[in-house]
Amino acid sequence: MRPHPFKTLSVDETRVARDVILSQYQDVVVDFREIFLQEPEKELMKQYLELEHSSQPGRSPQSKQPPRLAKCQYDVIGSSRIPEYHEAIVDIESKRRVKHDIISKEYHASLTLWEFETLVQACKESEEFQSAIKELELPEGFELVVEPWPYGGLDIGAENKRYFQGLCFAQDMKNGNADSNFYAYPLPLIPVMDAHLKKIVRIDRLATGGKGDSMSGKTHSARVLDHCESAEYVPELLPEGTRQDMKPINITQPAGPSFKVTDESLVEWQKWRFRVSFNPREGAVLHDVHYDGRSILYRLSVSEMTVPYGDARAPFHRKQAFDFGDGGAGNCANNLSLGCDCLGVIKYFDAVVVGSDGEPRHHPNVVCLHEQDNGIGWKHTNWRTGRAVVTRLRELVVQFIITLANYEYVFAFKLDTAGGITVEVRATGIVSVVNIDPGKTSEYGNVVSGGVLAQNHQHIFATRLDPAIDGHKNSMLYEESHTVAQNPETNPNGNFYEIRKTPITHSSGHDAAPHHNRVFKIINQNKKNRFSGNPVAYKFTPPATQKLLAAPGSIQSNRALFTQHHVWVTKYQEDELYAAGHYTLQSQQEKGGVADMAKRNDEVTNEDLVLWNVFGLTHNPRVEDWPVMPCEIFQLHFRPSDFFDRNPAIDVPSTKNQASVLAEKCCTKENL
Amino acid sequence: MRPHPFKTLSVDETRVARDVILSQYQDVVVDFREIFLQEPEKELMKQYLELEHSSQPGRSPQSKQPPRLAKCQYDVIGSSRIPEYHEAIVDIESKRRVKHDIISKEYHASLTLWEFETLVQACKESEEFQSAIKELELPEGFELVVEPWPYGGLDIGAENKRYFQGLCFAQDMKNGNADSNFYAYPLPLIPVMDAHLKKIVRIDRLATGGKGDSMSGKTHSARVLDHCESAEYVPELLPEGTRQDMKPINITQPAGPSFKVTDESLVEWQKWRFRVSFNPREGAVLHDVHYDGRSILYRLSVSEMTVPYGDARAPFHRKQAFDFGDGGAGNCANNLSLGCDCLGVIKYFDAVVVGSDGEPRHHPNVVCLHEQDNGIGWKHTNWRTGRAVVTRLRELVVQFIITLANYEYVFAFKLDTAGGITVEVRATGIVSVVNIDPGKTSEYGNVVSGGVLAQNHQHIFATRLDPAIDGHKNSMLYEESHTVAQNPETNPNGNFYEIRKTPITHSSGHDAAPHHNRVFKIINQNKKNRFSGNPVAYKFTPPATQKLLAAPGSIQSNRALFTQHHVWVTKYQEDELYAAGHYTLQSQQEKGGVADMAKRNDEVTNEDLVLWNVFGLTHNPRVEDWPVMPCEIFQLHFRPSDFFDRNPAIDVPSTKNQASVLAEKCCTKENL
Repeated sequence: MRPHPFKTLSVDETRVARDVILSQYQDVVVDFREIFLQEPEKELMKQYLELEHSSQPGRSPQSKQPPRLAKCQYDVIGSSRIPEYHEAIVDIESKRRVKHDIISKEYHASLTLWEFETLVQACKESEEFQSAIKELELPEGFELVVEPWPYGGLDIGAENKRYFQGLCFAQDMKNGNADSNFYAYPLPLIPVMDAHLKKIVRIDRLATGGKGDSMSGKTHSARVLDHCESAEYVPELLPEGTRQDMKPINITQPAGPSFKVTDESLVEWQKWRFRVSFNPREGAVLHDVHYDGRSILYRLSVSEMTVPYGDARAPFHRKQAFDFGDGGAGNCANNLSLGCDCLGVIKYFDAVVVGSDGEPRHHPNVVCLHEQDNGIGWKHTNWRTGRAVVTRLRELVVQFIITLANYEYVFAFKLDTAGGITVEVRATGIVSVVNIDPGKTSEYGNVVSGGVLAQNHQHIFATRLDPAIDGHKNSMLYEESHTVAQNPETNPNGNFYEIRKTPITHSSGHDAAPHHNRVFKIINQNKKNRFSGNPVAYKFTPPATQKLLAAPGSIQSNRALFTQHHVWVTKYQEDELYAAGHYTLQSQQEKGGVADMAKRNDEVTNEDLVLWNVFGLTHNPRVEDWPVMPCEIFQLHFRPSDFFDRNPAIDVPSTKNQASVLAEKCCTKENL
Repeated sequence: MRPHPFKTLSVDETRVARDVILSQYQDVVVDFREIFLQEPEKELMKQYLELEHSSQPGRSPQSKQPPRLAKCQYDVIGSSRIPEYHEAIVDIESKRRVKHDIISKEYHASLTLWEFETLVQACKESEEFQSAIKELELPEGFELVVEPWPYGGLDIGAENKRYFQGLCFAQDMKNGNADSNFYAYPLPLIPVMDAHLKKIVRIDRLATGGKGDSMSGKTHSARVLDHCESAEYVPELLPEGTRQDMKPINITQPAGPSFKVTDESLVEWQKWRFRVSFNPREGAVLHDVHYDGRSILYRLSVSEMTVPYGDARAPFHRKQAFDFGDGGAGNCANNLSLGCDCLGVIKYFDAVVVGSDGEPRHHPNVVCLHEQDNGIGWKHTNWRTGRAVVTRLRELVVQFIITLANYEYVFAFKLDTAGGITVEVRATGIVSVVNIDPGKTSEYGNVVSGGVLAQNHQHIFATRLDPAIDGHKNSMLYEESHTVAQNPETNPNGNFYEIRKTPITHSSGHDAAPHHNRVFKIINQNKKNRFSGNPVAYKFTPPATQKLLAAPGSIQSNRALFTQHHVWVTKYQEDELYAAGHYTLQSQQEKGGVADMAKRNDEVTNEDLVLWNVFGLTHNPRVEDWPVMPCEIFQLHFRPSDFFDRNPAIDVPSTKNQASVLAEKCCTKENL
């Protein structure tokens, strides 16, 4: 039996794809970047899913099943030694390469961990770099750490080679602990590697000055770390240890979880039903999301993010990651750990990754699934009788966590008992820092520890939501609430306010407008709510987070056009999954991103449309963000709006939880 | 030993105050409204607290202790039968009335439950009202329910008597269940009572039309409930019962809670230390909030809220509650229930309330205190070694819940391990509805069930935060991030952005500006962070929620001037606790509210200042809000900003939780 079309490729399937690709080539080196599921065309999937949802449970409609396809991304390196970047699609069953492209040199393939290792090696081999490090007279017991980074936006006029840059730090190894925090000791130089030559071709010297200093002049002494301070976070290195008075909170589910997972991909929970998959670029993806047998979404993913830094001094303008497009969020996913990343009864999902030889291996526990209690769901007390009915808000969480060098993001899709869907991002990890001279402060960031300047930056995310509100033909509008001047005809007492609805008829970008309470609705105009007469809908209020601050026309701005609006509506097209376009690494200009999609000016009324939401965080660091920052939590809420005929959580039982106890009954005398 | 100055009055203290008041009067009736703690003057408290914090634990500085004072609010009814409203302060120890005011007739005392009961009784006794109800030909088995409401903003020119209005519904008593949801059957008339006469003096007939119908004409048939539908929420009345597949989530704390509560008011938890009190107007209040021995807040409370309705048809412009000023949030607090309103180990606090005879009685479990896990607190994975350090975000929650006729609010103050303070409001309960004719829709709201129009409305809240950032002399500024045009001197690459700081030098109102990432900081300019050189601060980003929509100059708007800005900064003055002023009931104009305080144009640099935050929810109801709405959750975050020298949660242990289990280990075969 074929796997479900949305199921992540297995190790065996991945190996078939690899072998098919390798069989195409002789006398050349093939370095694999990725092999992952090429999702079936939507038209085929619509037919398949229609059958699936009308069939008996467990009887999948094999006859209509789309082919299993693998997307393969790899370099072909012939005698010229200059790699060519290829993308191909392999049909797993027929073992055929059914599509094949050699990508224009204009674009750069996304990076892989093996390229990062090359940079570290190149630094070791570079005499110029080694001598530059020697100049810095590292204190005894300190060792160099090179942190590979994408090169960022290529300067206009620069030769479009494939580069990587290394941020350099020193690690205090006197304690013999490989997890000693080296970010506390930033070194003022950045080696740049030509990835094809695998050689360091330039060393950028970094300014370490403060307000009033020149942008490029060297102001630091050789012993650049003497004013830096240890900033450990691993518990065994904390000078005063960890606090001892935090008693455990346990989350137990004695009757087991309320969810059911079958086929390692199908999740059923509290009337919700959806599939989870995982890919190297987006991480976890939800597919075919239904509630109580009614379709809500075809697909939900985090599509892209960019993190531009605001330090004016070259080469910091090239500090701008696109963490989904540059290296792949899925590739950076943490292998999650029981009792650490979430509590209660946990179901983990694994992924498959490939090495440069294409050999697949399991990437365990990259996604976790669990239920959680989020406080009161709804309550009403009848004050006449004293009867209180109170229910809990239960959530099902699909979570994955990525590490990008110094930084961490926790992504979660949460479905709840009231029909809500929440996308949550938590930003944590270690802020990116550079060296600053003793006693100086800077307009480019905040001095968070001795010698350590945490640079101002932004995090701007894009989620992609492919709705299917009671079917694939949907429309969008936004609704605002407006003051109406007091007048005898329509507003005699001045208390009336007007709701204005604006349909979005063509693909386009839109902004948040909280002063007008602008709410966007994804509607199915073919189906009306039986009470209100309104089309069934899901709604969301785009948070009015700050947009990209980089100057219009700058490279940072041009390569992140998706940040120009909070909301984009586009017409569905195959393979349009990425808000900043397919190729972001070293880009100078966003191409094929959501701005280009919107520019087609497609009609999107009663069409298969896609909704993109852009939100962000302007992060001017606090001292409290050091050495590891407390999570900044961001949430995006999608809520039913006249989709149901009543509160869908009205039948959640108001059962009294039997495990709760009075503090008086469990506390020792000194506590109460 | 005297109780701590912030401790809620005990039953005995309350009785002393009552007796002192009663002893002042002969041959008149004294009807009590409230007796509660008059907090000591701040100057006295500063001295007291300074000693307290420098003394040995448990040795309270009795010598410097301010007097225990009770604020008494009562009506004096003499031979004229017209009540006079009095406010007095009683010194508990000396048993003397130390202050006494007779309040001008211009103002109305806040309402009490016994006045609500009077309205119900007056309806029973009114022949005119009873005959109006008969006209409506209620279906068999239905009984009238009168829901007392404050009268709302008095119309200009109307005689300033004390009125109450009743919203009328019919309850289906055929099932014999007193909790059958009568809001599903709204009746189109509102009786108005003169509170001094205790008589119904007018019956307002309500329009039931839809779009295009006149604002006042009668359009409904006599049998006005025939198209209404049952909308039950108590589990035993749900036609299909409650869902059966939600398995319990238990929160257990086998080693007990991490908090310690002494003297029924002092809470210590994870370096936090503060006092909790409770009063009939504001509900729970936090006092003297410290972290690790450093002062952060002097006082934190929810100060006021207003809920104006947007239905243009008279008398709906008078639907505008001020739920703190009109009747007192504390008075409406729910008596919380173990295992229902929060989970885990719970400490409850009681309050004392008085009846009209002034006799005090316990109001049990009005505040609950518990710890909760809010997911990942901070995490970093060293990708070189694979070592992940992950800690949880632990919160301590002080929660109270109020019921206002149909509606519920859940208020919570949350302190967390990263030094954050969050004010959370959840709006739930039953939306306010009126009857609408069959098949019609309305521009004034949404038809959420047969015959039931849920009117558009807003909820606008004000919190009051009296900061003491490392002392009482604080200042405020706001900080914005701005794009800078690309230019060779300051922004050669276009990536730089500028942080602009604007000090708030005088008492004033300010707005949210998310497009500039406007962040407000409460700073102590006398103390600098040792790394950044910035003054120690707490910061917050005011959410850009929609302000009041009522037309400027309307009564709804004039009586809620506090809604004109998201942020107000005022200079501390005694007894300025209420954002919309002391007297809101039936007001036409806000007096003595935060707008008036700001108007003084006081200098607030390095002064004892107060910060008010206004936020809200424009609530155009969804069908899903019926019959009881799922919580709308709103949060306001205060975070340290260069207050600490590092992440204050860095020493939270990354202990692996031992109670978490793999789904595979606890699931039956059919689940996985």
